[in-house]
Amino acid sequence: MMNLLDLLKGRATVRRYSERDVDASLLNRLLEAAARTQTMGNLQLYSVVVTRDAERKRALAPAHFNQPMVTDAPVVLTICADFNRTTRWCEERKAKPGYGNFLSFLNASTDALLFTQTFSCLAEEEGLGLCFLGTTIYQPLAIINALHLPRLVMPVATLTVGWPAEEPALSDRLPVSSFVHEETYSDYSRDEIDRFYAEKESLPENKHFVEINQKETLAQIFTDIRYTKKDNEAMSKGLFEALRHQGFIEE
Amino acid sequence: MMNLLDLLKGRATVRRYSERDVDASLLNRLLEAAARTQTMGNLQLYSVVVTRDAERKRALAPAHFNQPMVTDAPVVLTICADFNRTTRWCEERKAKPGYGNFLSFLNASTDALLFTQTFSCLAEEEGLGLCFLGTTIYQPLAIINALHLPRLVMPVATLTVGWPAEEPALSDRLPVSSFVHEETYSDYSRDEIDRFYAEKESLPENKHFVEINQKETLAQIFTDIRYTKKDNEAMSKGLFEALRHQGFIEE
Repeated sequence: MMNLLDLLKGRATVRRYSERDVDASLLNRLLEAAARTQTMGNLQLYSVVVTRDAERKRALAPAHFNQPMVTDAPVVLTICADFNRTTRWCEERKAKPGYGNFLSFLNASTDALLFTQTFSCLAEEEGLGLCFLGTTIYQPLAIINALHLPRLVMPVATLTVGWPAEEPALSDRLPVSSFVHEETYSDYSRDEIDRFYAEKESLPENKHFVEINQKETLAQIFTDIRYTKKDNEAMSKGLFEALRHQGFIEE
Repeated sequence: MMNLLDLLKGRATVRRYSERDVDASLLNRLLEAAARTQTMGNLQLYSVVVTRDAERKRALAPAHFNQPMVTDAPVVLTICADFNRTTRWCEERKAKPGYGNFLSFLNASTDALLFTQTFSCLAEEEGLGLCFLGTTIYQPLAIINALHLPRLVMPVATLTVGWPAEEPALSDRLPVSSFVHEETYSDYSRDEIDRFYAEKESLPENKHFVEINQKETLAQIFTDIRYTKKDNEAMSKGLFEALRHQGFIEE
Protein backbone atom coordinates (compact mmCIF):
# COMPACT_ATOMS: atom_id res chain seq x y z
CA MET A 1 0.00 0.00 0.00
CA MET A 2 1.29 3.45 -0.91
CA ASN A 3 1.01 6.39 1.46
CA LEU A 4 -0.18 9.81 0.32
CA LEU A 5 3.34 11.27 0.25
CA ASP A 6 4.51 8.68 -2.28
CA LEU A 7 1.26 8.80 -4.21
CA LEU A 8 1.53 12.57 -4.68
CA LYS A 9 5.00 12.29 -6.19
CA GLY A 10 3.37 10.66 -9.19
CA ARG A 11 0.01 12.45 -9.33
CA ALA A 12 -1.27 14.28 -12.37
CA THR A 13 -4.61 15.53 -13.59
CA VAL A 14 -6.50 12.88 -15.59
CA ARG A 15 -8.72 14.10 -18.44
CA ARG A 16 -9.42 10.83 -20.26
CA TYR A 17 -11.47 8.09 -18.64
CA SER A 18 -12.23 4.44 -19.40
CA GLU A 19 -15.77 3.17 -20.04
CA ARG A 20 -15.85 1.59 -16.58
CA ASP A 21 -18.41 3.20 -14.28
CA VAL A 22 -17.68 4.63 -10.84
CA ASP A 23 -19.65 2.58 -8.37
CA ALA A 24 -22.11 4.61 -6.27
CA SER A 25 -21.20 2.80 -3.07
CA LEU A 26 -17.49 3.50 -3.61
CA LEU A 27 -18.26 7.16 -4.30
CA ASN A 28 -20.36 7.44 -1.15
CA ARG A 29 -17.66 5.78 0.93
CA LEU A 30 -15.11 8.33 -0.27
CA LEU A 31 -17.48 11.28 0.24
CA GLU A 32 -18.25 10.06 3.75
CA ALA A 33 -14.56 9.73 4.63
CA ALA A 34 -13.82 13.17 3.14
CA ALA A 35 -16.38 14.60 5.53
CA ARG A 36 -13.93 13.92 8.39
CA THR A 37 -12.33 17.20 7.23
CA GLN A 38 -12.75 19.93 9.86
CA THR A 39 -15.32 22.66 9.11
CA MET A 40 -16.51 25.91 10.66
CA GLY A 41 -18.22 25.09 13.96
CA ASN A 42 -18.48 21.53 12.60
CA LEU A 43 -21.42 22.75 10.51
CA GLN A 44 -20.19 21.17 7.23
CA LEU A 45 -21.09 24.15 5.07
CA TYR A 46 -21.02 22.29 1.75
CA SER A 47 -23.10 20.15 -0.56
CA VAL A 48 -22.12 17.90 -3.44
CA VAL A 49 -24.28 17.50 -6.53
CA VAL A 50 -23.53 14.22 -8.32
CA THR A 51 -24.15 14.28 -12.07
CA ARG A 52 -24.27 10.97 -13.96
CA ASP A 53 -27.10 11.67 -16.41
CA ALA A 54 -25.81 12.39 -19.94
CA GLU A 55 -28.33 15.14 -20.57
CA ARG A 56 -27.48 16.92 -17.32
CA LYS A 57 -23.79 16.74 -18.20
CA ARG A 58 -24.57 18.38 -21.53
CA ALA A 59 -26.45 21.09 -19.63
CA LEU A 60 -23.38 21.72 -17.46
CA ALA A 61 -20.83 21.61 -20.29
CA PRO A 62 -21.24 25.18 -21.64
CA ALA A 63 -20.53 26.62 -18.18
CA HIS A 64 -17.19 24.81 -18.42
CA PHE A 65 -16.43 26.06 -21.96
CA ASN A 66 -17.46 22.63 -23.29
CA GLN A 67 -14.29 20.97 -22.06
CA PRO A 68 -14.78 17.32 -23.11
CA MET A 69 -14.19 15.89 -19.61
CA VAL A 70 -17.62 17.11 -18.49
CA THR A 71 -19.53 14.90 -20.92
CA ASP A 72 -16.91 12.12 -21.11
CA ALA A 73 -16.41 11.40 -17.39
CA PRO A 74 -18.82 8.90 -15.80
CA VAL A 75 -19.31 11.25 -12.84
CA VAL A 76 -19.21 15.01 -12.45
CA LEU A 77 -19.19 16.41 -8.91
CA THR A 78 -20.18 20.01 -8.32
CA ILE A 79 -19.15 21.03 -4.83
CA CYS A 80 -21.03 23.99 -3.38
CA ALA A 81 -20.62 26.40 -0.52
CA ASP A 82 -23.91 25.70 1.28
CA PHE A 83 -25.45 27.84 4.02
CA ASN A 84 -28.96 26.81 2.98
CA ARG A 85 -29.05 23.57 4.98
CA THR A 86 -27.80 25.27 8.16
CA THR A 87 -30.26 28.11 7.61
CA ARG A 88 -33.13 25.63 7.15
CA TRP A 89 -32.07 23.97 10.42
CA CYS A 90 -32.07 27.32 12.23
CA GLU A 91 -35.51 28.17 10.85
CA GLU A 92 -36.90 24.89 12.18
CA ARG A 93 -35.35 25.55 15.60
CA LYS A 94 -36.54 29.05 16.51
CA ALA A 95 -33.09 30.45 15.70
CA LYS A 96 -32.54 33.56 13.55
CA PRO A 97 -29.87 32.80 10.95
CA GLY A 98 -27.66 35.63 9.68
CA TYR A 99 -25.68 34.01 6.90
CA GLY A 100 -26.71 36.04 3.87
CA ASN A 101 -23.41 37.90 3.74
CA PHE A 102 -19.96 37.78 2.21
CA LEU A 103 -18.08 36.44 5.24
CA SER A 104 -20.49 33.52 5.38
CA PHE A 105 -19.91 32.81 1.71
CA LEU A 106 -16.14 32.68 2.25
CA ASN A 107 -16.55 30.51 5.34
CA ALA A 108 -18.71 28.04 3.42
CA SER A 109 -16.46 28.22 0.39
CA THR A 110 -13.48 27.36 2.61
CA ASP A 111 -15.32 24.35 4.05
CA ALA A 112 -16.27 23.22 0.55
CA LEU A 113 -12.76 23.52 -0.89
CA LEU A 114 -11.03 21.75 1.99
CA PHE A 115 -13.60 18.95 1.71
CA THR A 116 -13.02 18.83 -2.06
CA GLN A 117 -9.30 18.34 -1.64
CA THR A 118 -9.59 15.61 0.98
CA PHE A 119 -11.97 13.84 -1.39
CA SER A 120 -9.46 14.29 -4.24
CA CYS A 121 -6.65 12.72 -2.24
CA LEU A 122 -8.90 9.81 -1.27
CA ALA A 123 -10.14 9.25 -4.81
CA GLU A 124 -6.62 9.32 -6.24
CA GLU A 125 -5.48 6.90 -3.55
CA GLU A 126 -8.28 4.59 -4.76
CA GLY A 127 -6.88 4.77 -8.29
CA LEU A 128 -9.49 7.13 -9.71
CA GLY A 129 -8.47 9.93 -12.07
CA LEU A 130 -9.66 13.50 -11.51
CA CYS A 131 -9.78 16.82 -13.26
CA PHE A 132 -10.49 19.95 -11.19
CA LEU A 133 -12.42 22.50 -13.24
CA GLY A 134 -11.55 26.04 -12.27
CA THR A 135 -14.24 27.22 -14.69
CA THR A 136 -16.86 26.64 -11.95
CA ILE A 137 -16.65 30.27 -10.83
CA TYR A 138 -16.43 31.74 -14.34
CA GLN A 139 -20.14 31.54 -15.19
CA PRO A 140 -21.70 30.38 -11.93
CA LEU A 141 -25.27 31.34 -12.86
CA ALA A 142 -25.28 28.73 -15.64
CA ILE A 143 -24.39 26.04 -13.08
CA ILE A 144 -26.86 27.42 -10.53
CA ASN A 145 -29.61 27.07 -13.14
CA ALA A 146 -28.56 23.64 -14.42
CA LEU A 147 -28.44 22.14 -10.91
CA HIS A 148 -31.34 24.13 -9.37
CA LEU A 149 -29.19 25.57 -6.60
CA PRO A 150 -31.28 27.60 -4.15
CA ARG A 151 -30.41 30.78 -2.26
CA LEU A 152 -27.27 30.49 -0.07
CA VAL A 153 -25.83 27.70 -2.24
CA MET A 154 -22.96 28.66 -4.56
CA PRO A 155 -20.89 26.32 -6.75
CA VAL A 156 -17.17 26.65 -5.98
CA ALA A 157 -15.52 23.53 -7.42
CA THR A 158 -16.13 20.83 -10.01
CA LEU A 159 -14.38 17.49 -10.32
CA THR A 160 -14.72 15.13 -13.24
CA VAL A 161 -14.17 11.61 -11.93
CA GLY A 162 -13.47 8.29 -13.63
CA TRP A 163 -11.02 5.44 -14.04
CA PRO A 164 -7.95 6.69 -15.93
CA ALA A 165 -7.52 5.94 -19.63
CA GLU A 166 -4.24 7.84 -19.81
CA GLU A 167 -1.06 8.21 -17.79
CA PRO A 168 -0.26 11.90 -18.07
CA ALA A 169 3.29 13.12 -17.58
CA LEU A 170 4.10 15.03 -14.41
CA SER A 171 3.84 18.79 -14.75
CA ASP A 172 6.52 21.17 -13.47
CA ARG A 173 6.40 22.93 -10.11
CA LEU A 174 8.07 26.04 -8.73
CA PRO A 175 10.80 25.32 -6.16
CA VAL A 176 9.51 25.18 -2.58
CA SER A 177 11.67 28.21 -1.67
CA SER A 178 9.62 30.29 -4.11
CA PHE A 179 6.39 30.02 -2.12
CA VAL A 180 7.61 29.60 1.47
CA HIS A 181 8.49 32.71 3.49
CA GLU A 182 10.18 32.62 6.89
CA GLU A 183 8.53 34.80 9.57
CA THR A 184 7.46 37.58 7.20
CA TYR A 185 6.76 37.88 3.49
CA SER A 186 9.86 38.91 1.55
CA ASP A 187 9.02 40.32 -1.83
CA TYR A 188 10.67 38.95 -4.97
CA SER A 189 13.79 40.42 -6.55
CA ARG A 190 14.40 40.25 -10.28
CA ASP A 191 17.04 37.57 -9.67
CA GLU A 192 14.61 35.43 -7.69
CA ILE A 193 11.95 35.72 -10.38
CA ASP A 194 14.50 34.64 -13.00
CA ARG A 195 15.60 31.69 -10.89
CA PHE A 196 12.14 30.50 -9.80
CA TYR A 197 10.60 30.60 -13.29
CA ALA A 198 13.66 29.32 -15.18
CA GLU A 199 12.52 25.69 -15.33
CA LYS A 200 8.97 26.55 -16.45
CA GLU A 201 10.29 28.89 -19.16
CA SER A 202 12.79 26.33 -20.44
CA LEU A 203 10.30 23.49 -21.01
CA PRO A 204 10.01 22.57 -24.71
CA GLU A 205 6.18 22.59 -24.64
CA ASN A 206 6.14 26.09 -23.16
CA LYS A 207 8.68 27.37 -25.68
CA HIS A 208 6.47 25.86 -28.37
CA PHE A 209 3.37 27.72 -27.02
CA VAL A 210 5.26 30.99 -27.11
CA GLU A 211 6.37 30.34 -30.66
CA ILE A 212 3.07 29.25 -32.19
CA ASN A 213 1.29 32.17 -30.52
CA GLN A 214 3.94 34.58 -31.78
CA LYS A 215 4.61 35.92 -28.31
CA GLU A 216 7.87 37.11 -26.84
CA THR A 217 7.60 35.52 -23.36
CA LEU A 218 5.71 32.72 -21.63
CA ALA A 219 4.16 35.21 -19.20
CA GLN A 220 2.46 36.86 -22.18
CA ILE A 221 0.66 33.58 -22.90
CA PHE A 222 -1.04 34.02 -19.53
CA THR A 223 -1.71 37.76 -19.66
CA ASP A 224 -2.68 38.02 -23.34
CA ILE A 225 -4.43 34.69 -24.01
CA ARG A 226 -5.27 32.46 -21.06
CA TYR A 227 -6.17 34.89 -18.27
CA THR A 228 -6.65 38.38 -19.61
CA LYS A 229 -7.45 41.52 -17.62
CA LYS A 230 -10.57 42.06 -19.73
CA ASP A 231 -11.97 38.56 -19.10
CA ASN A 232 -11.04 38.67 -15.41
CA GLU A 233 -12.84 41.97 -14.91
CA ALA A 234 -15.94 40.84 -16.79
CA MET A 235 -16.07 37.57 -14.84
CA SER A 236 -15.52 39.40 -11.55
CA LYS A 237 -18.72 41.31 -12.29
CA GLY A 238 -20.54 38.06 -13.07
CA LEU A 239 -19.28 36.53 -9.86
CA PHE A 240 -20.63 39.43 -7.79
CA GLU A 241 -23.94 39.15 -9.63
CA ALA A 242 -24.13 35.44 -8.84
CA LEU A 243 -23.30 36.06 -5.17
CA ARG A 244 -26.05 38.69 -5.01
CA HIS A 245 -28.44 36.30 -6.78
CA GLN A 246 -27.69 33.58 -4.23
CA GLY A 247 -28.11 36.00 -1.32
CA PHE A 248 -24.49 36.11 -0.19
CA ILE A 249 -24.11 39.83 -0.92
CA GLU A 250 -26.84 42.22 0.07
CA GLU A 251 -28.40 44.41 -2.61
CA MET B 1 1.48 1.76 6.90
CA MET B 2 -2.01 3.27 7.03
CA ASN B 3 -3.70 4.70 3.95
CA LEU B 4 -5.52 8.04 4.02
CA LEU B 5 -8.96 6.42 4.13
CA ASP B 6 -8.16 4.58 7.37
CA LEU B 7 -6.27 7.55 8.79
CA LEU B 8 -9.26 9.85 8.30
CA LYS B 9 -11.57 7.55 10.22
CA GLY B 10 -9.64 8.49 13.34
CA ARG B 11 -8.69 12.09 12.61
CA ALA B 12 -9.51 14.99 14.90
CA THR B 13 -8.29 18.53 15.37
CA VAL B 14 -5.31 18.74 17.76
CA ARG B 15 -5.05 21.87 19.91
CA ARG B 16 -2.38 20.79 22.43
CA TYR B 17 1.19 20.10 21.36
CA SER B 18 4.27 18.55 22.95
CA GLU B 19 7.53 20.50 23.48
CA ARG B 20 9.12 18.62 20.57
CA ASP B 21 9.94 20.92 17.64
CA VAL B 22 8.80 20.38 14.07
CA ASP B 23 11.92 19.87 12.00
CA ALA B 24 12.36 22.40 9.17
CA SER B 25 13.41 19.74 6.68
CA LEU B 26 10.33 17.63 7.45
CA LEU B 27 8.11 20.69 7.06
CA ASN B 28 9.69 21.58 3.72
CA ARG B 29 9.34 18.02 2.48
CA LEU B 30 5.60 18.10 3.26
CA LEU B 31 5.12 21.56 1.73
CA GLU B 32 6.94 20.43 -1.40
CA ALA B 33 4.79 17.31 -1.73
CA ALA B 34 1.61 19.33 -1.12
CA ALA B 35 2.59 21.49 -4.10
CA ARG B 36 1.75 18.51 -6.36
CA THR B 37 -1.85 19.74 -5.93
CA GLN B 38 -3.21 21.10 -9.22
CA THR B 39 -3.57 24.89 -9.51
CA MET B 40 -4.94 27.42 -11.99
CA GLY B 41 -2.81 27.27 -15.13
CA ASN B 42 -0.20 25.57 -12.93
CA LEU B 43 0.66 29.03 -11.58
CA GLN B 44 0.59 27.98 -7.89
CA LEU B 45 -1.23 31.08 -6.71
CA TYR B 46 -0.30 30.72 -3.03
CA SER B 47 2.39 31.48 -0.49
CA VAL B 48 3.03 30.10 2.97
CA VAL B 49 4.42 32.22 5.78
CA VAL B 50 6.08 30.05 8.45
CA THR B 51 6.04 31.52 11.95
CA ARG B 52 8.30 30.02 14.61
CA ASP B 53 9.43 33.15 16.45
CA ALA B 54 7.63 33.62 19.78
CA GLU B 55 7.26 37.35 19.37
CA ARG B 56 5.78 37.01 15.89
CA LYS B 57 3.28 34.45 17.22
CA ARG B 58 2.24 36.93 19.88
CA ALA B 59 1.77 39.52 17.14
CA LEU B 60 -0.52 37.11 15.25
CA ALA B 61 -2.49 35.94 18.28
CA PRO B 62 -4.97 38.85 18.60
CA ALA B 63 -6.09 38.35 14.98
CA HIS B 64 -7.07 34.84 16.07
CA PHE B 65 -8.90 35.99 19.21
CA ASN B 66 -5.88 34.93 21.29
CA GLN B 67 -6.66 31.24 20.91
CA PRO B 68 -3.80 29.56 22.83
CA MET B 69 -2.77 27.30 19.91
CA VAL B 70 -1.20 30.27 18.12
CA THR B 71 1.42 30.90 20.80
CA ASP B 72 1.65 27.26 22.03
CA ALA B 73 2.27 25.47 18.71
CA PRO B 74 5.90 25.23 17.56
CA VAL B 75 4.86 26.30 14.05
CA VAL B 76 2.11 28.51 12.70
CA LEU B 77 1.49 28.45 8.94
CA THR B 78 -0.38 31.32 7.32
CA ILE B 79 -1.42 30.30 3.83
CA CYS B 80 -2.12 33.16 1.45
CA ALA B 81 -3.82 33.64 -1.89
CA ASP B 82 -0.89 35.12 -3.82
CA PHE B 83 -1.07 36.87 -7.18
CA ASN B 84 1.93 39.05 -6.31
CA ARG B 85 4.57 36.53 -7.39
CA THR B 86 2.87 35.87 -10.74
CA THR B 87 2.41 39.61 -11.25
CA ARG B 88 6.11 40.24 -10.50
CA TRP B 89 6.97 37.56 -13.06
CA CYS B 90 4.76 39.21 -15.68
CA GLU B 91 6.31 42.61 -14.98
CA GLU B 92 9.79 41.19 -15.55
CA ARG B 93 8.65 39.58 -18.82
CA LYS B 94 7.02 42.44 -20.75
CA ALA B 95 3.58 41.03 -19.95
CA LYS B 96 0.71 43.19 -18.65
CA PRO B 97 -0.85 41.44 -15.65
CA GLY B 98 -4.57 41.95 -14.91
CA TYR B 99 -5.05 40.21 -11.58
CA GLY B 100 -6.18 43.04 -9.32
CA ASN B 101 -9.79 41.86 -9.33
CA PHE B 102 -12.22 39.68 -7.41
CA LEU B 103 -12.16 36.66 -9.74
CA SER B 104 -8.38 36.53 -9.40
CA PHE B 105 -8.70 36.63 -5.62
CA LEU B 106 -11.09 33.66 -5.66
CA ASN B 107 -8.88 31.76 -8.10
CA ALA B 108 -5.85 32.26 -5.87
CA SER B 109 -7.86 31.54 -2.75
CA THR B 110 -8.99 28.24 -4.31
CA ASP B 111 -5.39 27.29 -5.11
CA ALA B 112 -4.33 28.18 -1.57
CA LEU B 113 -7.10 26.19 0.14
CA LEU B 114 -6.65 23.05 -1.96
CA PHE B 115 -2.90 23.22 -1.26
CA THR B 116 -3.66 23.71 2.46
CA GLN B 117 -5.76 20.60 2.62
CA THR B 118 -3.28 18.38 0.79
CA PHE B 119 -0.66 19.60 3.26
CA SER B 120 -3.02 18.82 6.15
CA CYS B 121 -3.55 15.25 4.98
CA LEU B 122 0.21 14.78 4.54
CA ALA B 123 1.04 16.26 7.94
CA GLU B 124 -1.56 14.12 9.70
CA GLU B 125 -0.25 11.04 7.89
CA GLU B 126 3.17 11.94 9.32
CA GLY B 127 1.67 11.96 12.82
CA LEU B 128 1.57 15.72 13.27
CA GLY B 129 -1.42 17.39 14.91
CA LEU B 130 -3.15 20.36 13.30
CA CYS B 131 -5.69 23.01 14.09
CA PHE B 132 -7.24 24.98 11.22
CA LEU B 133 -8.02 28.55 12.29
CA GLY B 134 -11.08 29.91 10.52
CA THR B 135 -10.38 33.25 12.22
CA THR B 136 -7.87 34.05 9.44
CA ILE B 137 -10.52 35.90 7.44
CA TYR B 138 -12.13 37.62 10.44
CA GLN B 139 -9.57 40.41 10.88
CA PRO B 140 -7.31 39.93 7.87
CA LEU B 141 -5.69 43.38 8.10
CA ALA B 142 -4.12 42.48 11.44
CA ILE B 143 -2.47 39.45 9.80
CA ILE B 144 -1.50 41.43 6.71
CA ASN B 145 0.31 43.91 8.98
CA ALA B 146 1.94 41.31 11.23
CA LEU B 147 3.36 39.35 8.27
CA HIS B 148 4.06 42.32 5.93
CA LEU B 149 1.88 40.93 3.17
CA PRO B 150 2.11 43.09 0.04
CA ARG B 151 -0.58 43.99 -2.51
CA LEU B 152 -2.22 40.95 -4.18
CA VAL B 153 -1.45 38.71 -1.20
CA MET B 154 -4.35 37.85 1.12
CA PRO B 155 -4.31 35.42 4.08
CA VAL B 156 -6.98 32.72 3.68
CA ALA B 157 -6.01 29.92 6.09
CA THR B 158 -3.93 29.33 9.20
CA LEU B 159 -2.72 26.01 10.56
CA THR B 160 -1.11 25.54 13.95
CA VAL B 161 1.22 22.55 13.68
CA GLY B 162 2.95 20.37 16.28
CA TRP B 163 3.34 16.90 17.69
CA PRO B 164 0.12 15.95 19.52
CA ALA B 165 -0.05 16.13 23.31
CA GLU B 166 -3.68 15.00 23.38
CA GLU B 167 -5.86 12.40 21.72
CA PRO B 168 -9.11 14.23 21.11
CA ALA B 169 -12.36 12.30 20.74
CA LEU B 170 -13.92 12.10 17.29
CA SER B 171 -16.51 14.77 16.60
CA ASP B 172 -19.91 14.01 15.05
CA ARG B 173 -20.70 14.34 11.36
CA LEU B 174 -23.94 14.74 9.42
CA PRO B 175 -24.96 11.63 7.47
CA VAL B 176 -23.58 11.53 3.93
CA SER B 177 -27.13 11.64 2.53
CA SER B 178 -27.55 15.11 4.07
CA PHE B 179 -24.93 16.73 1.84
CA VAL B 180 -25.04 14.63 -1.34
CA HIS B 181 -27.65 15.46 -3.99
CA GLU B 182 -28.33 13.27 -7.02
CA GLU B 183 -28.48 15.17 -10.35
CA THR B 184 -30.07 18.33 -8.94
CA TYR B 185 -30.24 20.00 -5.54
CA SER B 186 -33.29 18.90 -3.61
CA ASP B 187 -34.17 21.28 -0.83
CA TYR B 188 -34.65 20.04 2.73
CA SER B 189 -38.01 19.12 4.21
CA ARG B 190 -38.73 19.55 7.91
CA ASP B 191 -38.49 15.78 8.34
CA GLU B 192 -35.07 15.67 6.73
CA ILE B 193 -33.78 18.49 8.91
CA ASP B 194 -35.04 16.63 12.00
CA ARG B 195 -33.38 13.42 10.87
CA PHE B 196 -30.06 14.88 9.75
CA TYR B 197 -29.50 16.99 12.88
CA ALA B 198 -30.85 14.45 15.41
CA GLU B 199 -27.47 13.01 16.36
CA LYS B 200 -25.82 16.43 16.79
CA GLU B 201 -28.72 17.66 18.92
CA SER B 202 -28.71 14.56 21.10
CA LEU B 203 -25.02 14.72 22.11
CA PRO B 204 -24.59 15.32 25.87
CA GLU B 205 -21.99 18.10 25.34
CA ASN B 206 -24.34 19.95 23.00
CA LYS B 207 -27.27 19.59 25.37
CA HIS B 208 -24.99 20.96 28.08
CA PHE B 209 -24.09 24.02 25.94
CA VAL B 210 -27.75 24.74 25.39
CA GLU B 211 -28.45 24.47 29.11
CA ILE B 212 -25.59 26.59 30.45
CA ASN B 213 -26.31 29.28 27.86
CA GLN B 214 -30.00 29.22 28.77
CA LYS B 215 -31.03 28.65 25.16
CA GLU B 216 -33.95 26.67 23.82
CA THR B 217 -32.21 24.93 20.90
CA LEU B 218 -28.69 24.07 19.74
CA ALA B 219 -29.17 26.13 16.57
CA GLN B 220 -29.57 29.21 18.80
CA ILE B 221 -26.04 28.63 20.13
CA PHE B 222 -24.83 29.23 16.59
CA THR B 223 -27.10 32.15 15.67
CA ASP B 224 -27.05 33.98 19.01
CA ILE B 225 -23.54 33.31 20.32
CA ARG B 226 -21.00 31.72 17.98
CA TYR B 227 -21.82 33.19 14.55
CA THR B 228 -24.20 36.12 14.88
CA LYS B 229 -25.71 38.17 12.07
CA LYS B 230 -24.24 41.34 13.58
CA ASP B 231 -20.68 39.97 13.73
CA ASN B 232 -20.94 38.39 10.28
CA GLU B 233 -22.08 41.66 8.73
CA ALA B 234 -19.36 43.69 10.47
CA MET B 235 -16.68 41.19 9.44
CA SER B 236 -18.00 41.09 5.86
CA LYS B 237 -17.30 44.82 5.70
CA GLY B 238 -13.80 44.27 7.09
CA LEU B 239 -13.19 41.55 4.56
CA PHE B 240 -14.13 43.82 1.66
CA GLU B 241 -11.89 46.54 3.11
CA ALA B 242 -8.98 44.11 3.31
CA LEU B 243 -9.57 42.94 -0.28
CA ARG B 244 -9.59 46.57 -1.44
CA HIS B 245 -6.46 47.26 0.61
CA GLN B 246 -4.68 44.30 -1.04
CA GLY B 247 -5.81 45.41 -4.50
CA PHE B 248 -8.22 42.54 -5.20
CA ILE B 249 -11.27 44.81 -5.43
CA GLU B 250 -11.05 48.04 -7.35
CA GLU B 251 -11.87 51.29 -5.54
